[in-house]
Amino acid sequence: MESIVHQSVKLCPFMRKTIASAHGVRQLKCGNLTAMAEKCPVVGNALHVRGYATAAASAAAVARKVGGESVADHATQESSFDFDGMFEREIEKKRLDKSYRFFNNINRLAREFPMAHRQEEDDKVTVWCSNDYLALSKNQQVVDAMKKAMDKYGAGAGGTRNIAGHNRHALKLEAEIAALHKKEGALVFSSCYMANDAVLSLLGQKVKDLVIFSDELNHASMIVGIRHANTTKHIFRHNDLQHLEEMLQMYPKSTPKLIAFESVYSMSGSVSDISKICDLADKYGALTFLDEVHAVGLYGPHGAGVAEHCDFEAHRLSGISSVGGANTVMDRVDMITGTLGKSFGTVGGYVASSRRLIDWCRSYAPGFIFTTTLPPAVMAGAAEAIRYQRRHLDLRQQQQRHTSYVKKGLKDLGIPVIPNPSHIVPVLVGNADLAKQASDMLMEKHRIYVQAINFPTVARGTERLRITPTPGHTDDLSDMLLDAVDDVFACLQLPRVRDWESQGGILGVGEKDYVEQDNLWTEEQLQLTNDALNPNVLDPVLQQLEVSSGIKV
Amino acid sequence: MESIVHQSVKLCPFMRKTIASAHGVRQLKCGNLTAMAEKCPVVGNALHVRGYATAAASAAAVARKVGGESVADHATQESSFDFDGMFEREIEKKRLDKSYRFFNNINRLAREFPMAHRQEEDDKVTVWCSNDYLALSKNQQVVDAMKKAMDKYGAGAGGTRNIAGHNRHALKLEAEIAALHKKEGALVFSSCYMANDAVLSLLGQKVKDLVIFSDELNHASMIVGIRHANTTKHIFRHNDLQHLEEMLQMYPKSTPKLIAFESVYSMSGSVSDISKICDLADKYGALTFLDEVHAVGLYGPHGAGVAEHCDFEAHRLSGISSVGGANTVMDRVDMITGTLGKSFGTVGGYVASSRRLIDWCRSYAPGFIFTTTLPPAVMAGAAEAIRYQRRHLDLRQQQQRHTSYVKKGLKDLGIPVIPNPSHIVPVLVGNADLAKQASDMLMEKHRIYVQAINFPTVARGTERLRITPTPGHTDDLSDMLLDAVDDVFACLQLPRVRDWESQGGILGVGEKDYVEQDNLWTEEQLQLTNDALNPNVLDPVLQQLEVSSGIKV
Repeated sequence: MESIVHQSVKLCPFMRKTIASAHGVRQLKCGNLTAMAEKCPVVGNALHVRGYATAAASAAAVARKVGGESVADHATQESSFDFDGMFEREIEKKRLDKSYRFFNNINRLAREFPMAHRQEEDDKVTVWCSNDYLALSKNQQVVDAMKKAMDKYGAGAGGTRNIAGHNRHALKLEAEIAALHKKEGALVFSSCYMANDAVLSLLGQKVKDLVIFSDELNHASMIVGIRHANTTKHIFRHNDLQHLEEMLQMYPKSTPKLIAFESVYSMSGSVSDISKICDLADKYGALTFLDEVHAVGLYGPHGAGVAEHCDFEAHRLSGISSVGGANTVMDRVDMITGTLGKSFGTVGGYVASSRRLIDWCRSYAPGFIFTTTLPPAVMAGAAEAIRYQRRHLDLRQQQQRHTSYVKKGLKDLGIPVIPNPSHIVPVLVGNADLAKQASDMLMEKHRIYVQAINFPTVARGTERLRITPTPGHTDDLSDMLLDAVDDVFACLQLPRVRDWESQGGILGVGEKDYVEQDNLWTEEQLQLTNDALNPNVLDPVLQQLEVSSGIKV
Repeated sequence: MESIVHQSVKLCPFMRKTIASAHGVRQLKCGNLTAMAEKCPVVGNALHVRGYATAAASAAAVARKVGGESVADHATQESSFDFDGMFEREIEKKRLDKSYRFFNNINRLAREFPMAHRQEEDDKVTVWCSNDYLALSKNQQVVDAMKKAMDKYGAGAGGTRNIAGHNRHALKLEAEIAALHKKEGALVFSSCYMANDAVLSLLGQKVKDLVIFSDELNHASMIVGIRHANTTKHIFRHNDLQHLEEMLQMYPKSTPKLIAFESVYSMSGSVSDISKICDLADKYGALTFLDEVHAVGLYGPHGAGVAEHCDFEAHRLSGISSVGGANTVMDRVDMITGTLGKSFGTVGGYVASSRRLIDWCRSYAPGFIFTTTLPPAVMAGAAEAIRYQRRHLDLRQQQQRHTSYVKKGLKDLGIPVIPNPSHIVPVLVGNADLAKQASDMLMEKHRIYVQAINFPTVARGTERLRITPTPGHTDDLSDMLLDAVDDVFACLQLPRVRDWESQGGILGVGEKDYVEQDNLWTEEQLQLTNDALNPNVLDPVLQQLEVSSGIKV
């Protein structure tokens, strides 16, 4: 557009006179260009004859006519933009920098968890990198709930929530989610990518002058949502609360603010200090938006995530009812988003929050309004998974024990693991090509599947193998993994901890003064049994739903 | 940000001197503000002592200090922005203008299609507004395929396509979709909302200077995608190709362009002239992006949509193989998006296109890369639905016959139906409150569920009841519907065709000179039997998949 304007100014004496400065040109928008064109002795008449309908069309057309070019020429004599060439070049770029992705055909077997077959059914591998953290996608109660829903209500929901797609499964699932996070309400989306994008972009677009503060390691879906929010944003260094506070200080308290962060960062396993971020939010008047996608199911006595884990004993004792009188960390967070596709074994995402905020999102977010509801069976399965895992502290504990076993084994072998207090085991490779080679060798030589994580998922130079133990990854399987990783590191001569040390270290690996954080799960918490959970299973939200809808929860 | 800068300029003699003009202030970005602040005799020192880390933080902080305000004040003395009050007001606005949505609890029963129960299981209603156009969500083969996949592979996919979530179900489904549309490839997303948003925004962000031309009635997901494309866009009047051409003419042929449109517009039932739009695209060098969400399953001999319907006989004879030598309308469209959640009975969305464009989207679209794969069972069900409907011309024909029956019945009663050549029956009410009352009365008095369609889904003043017949909506059920609608129109004194006539008409209803279009389905096409379809069922894409992957398609 701007180049057209420049050209017009160059060729047309009227425009040259009218728009004297470079600043004027920059200010020139389609609207006022039309207004000017209508006053133009040459173009004004032509404009009225053609009777263009929109300001945009008229303005640009005028600009082109002013430039002395014939409209008809464009349609015939020039050649079109070479889209195919551009797509090809962009793909080639990825091949050259080794970030081109080859998807592995992995068919995870329900009855042989954590095994999967590849293309051929008898070609089996052990999966060590899925996000089915609690193996609930293979849980018989979850699968049975889905089949039962399908027999009675069919395959798909058949409409958006507003048009024939709202049903008892949606009601029940949202009530289960609200109860899990002890919030007044919840809203389910097709995915948590969609939930993050929809909620963040809506807030930015609707809350005038909102300023968003975002952790630099936030997930792509939050980054996209914040970009779509189309408002002022500040990126603070990962988990650096001093940096966050410096940024918050820049604005009056009355300026609406939002702090967007995660509890467990999935590619490094680092964990945020939710309580301190809530302190800052209170001090500077900000909403808190917390993504617990990689934490639900895994932390807290009932699997509500790290926010619940912060007040472990209080929540354990109160069961899934509210903690009487207290203002827990989970209470203090304004919005919690989560997924149904990882620990909860199915697919979909959600936000849990106040009744008011949920109703507002429900009423205004296009990403919620204009999309087909998840299948009744998926929602029934997700609700069953949430309920099941809530009562099974042992699943979370097993997952933790298996993680510790693998982390300790790797440490003993001098294999570099990016240190963290969570369930993620990020094995540092530091090179895209070698990370892929390592992944391929694990697969072909050892029949173990660990995906190489490359750019854009992690920064270049920090490529890694991301290992995710589950309750199904026994010590025997772990020993096989440890042998295999050791062999691959030897064969490919990948840098071990001592090699990183000699280079000064990176991301906590081989860094001299690095102080490791304590695990989120304490030894004491890991000793509890399922019986230690308060057996109350109905909280006010679910009770209310039961009374109002007759749905047996 | 700008107001802070203005304030600083007002209060600080250094900045006043440095930034003399309004233009200078507008040009002032965080980066150069920091540079200036470092030169400032007053602030420079303070800046170095504090050791701010980022340009953004420093610049704004400096601007605030320059303004002479104390940072600490903001944290304590002012009150925070009233988010809750804002949410409440926004919701109240919807209540006042009657666009607040009350979701109906509709549980569609697999074995009693098209019946659903409401809250109580014995409170049954007939659903007349779902998008389960072919009733395939209730199809036993589809449900069985899903259950079989679930027994073997569990509930959820457990990862993104790149990390443990790529499998034979994804391969097979994408091959089925590519074969259906006779394209080289396809890519599946969580929803078609996501597909439209992801593909359009990616094109806008990656193709330098792309200009997008968009039909004014395009679906919200396309509007959002185009907004996120962050490039020049022009909206052409609905189906007005002259207007589109006027806009295309404004740019040289070499400027990259994209025309985004739908085949069947879901709320009015109007249909675009795909062939003529392709002519314009060729003439002016534009990619074509066609949303067939409300057309797949319903048009074309194999249910590939309106683009296939345009060359009905050629495609019928060639089966699902390519039409030898011909350049069909379907071939000419560059990208076709569709849904798995309507005619195909499950959930999800997709884009079908050239191998190159699909690989490019796969490699670059965050909305594809960073989201969990659909459950294996959902993908298996969708693939089965596509395959099933492809061979069942009769489903499409029954749907058409039931649509004609309802449209004719309403016409005989003088009930205003927005005229169109497709399967949508939009009954005009023209008032949000009355549309909701009509919907409520149909439900409570007649046990018929037709959702009222209000703003923002349709423009204010054109509110409607949108009726969607299916193969399951027999003439008996239709007669009951017709009686009910007639009664509701009488009770609520809703305007009939004659009333719209006396006001000059609207949207083709009661407009004097309005010429109705012929139905897309001709009488001849409606007479064909399933045997008239070419029995070949394997096309090159599927064959290739079978050879390369061993997947039985």
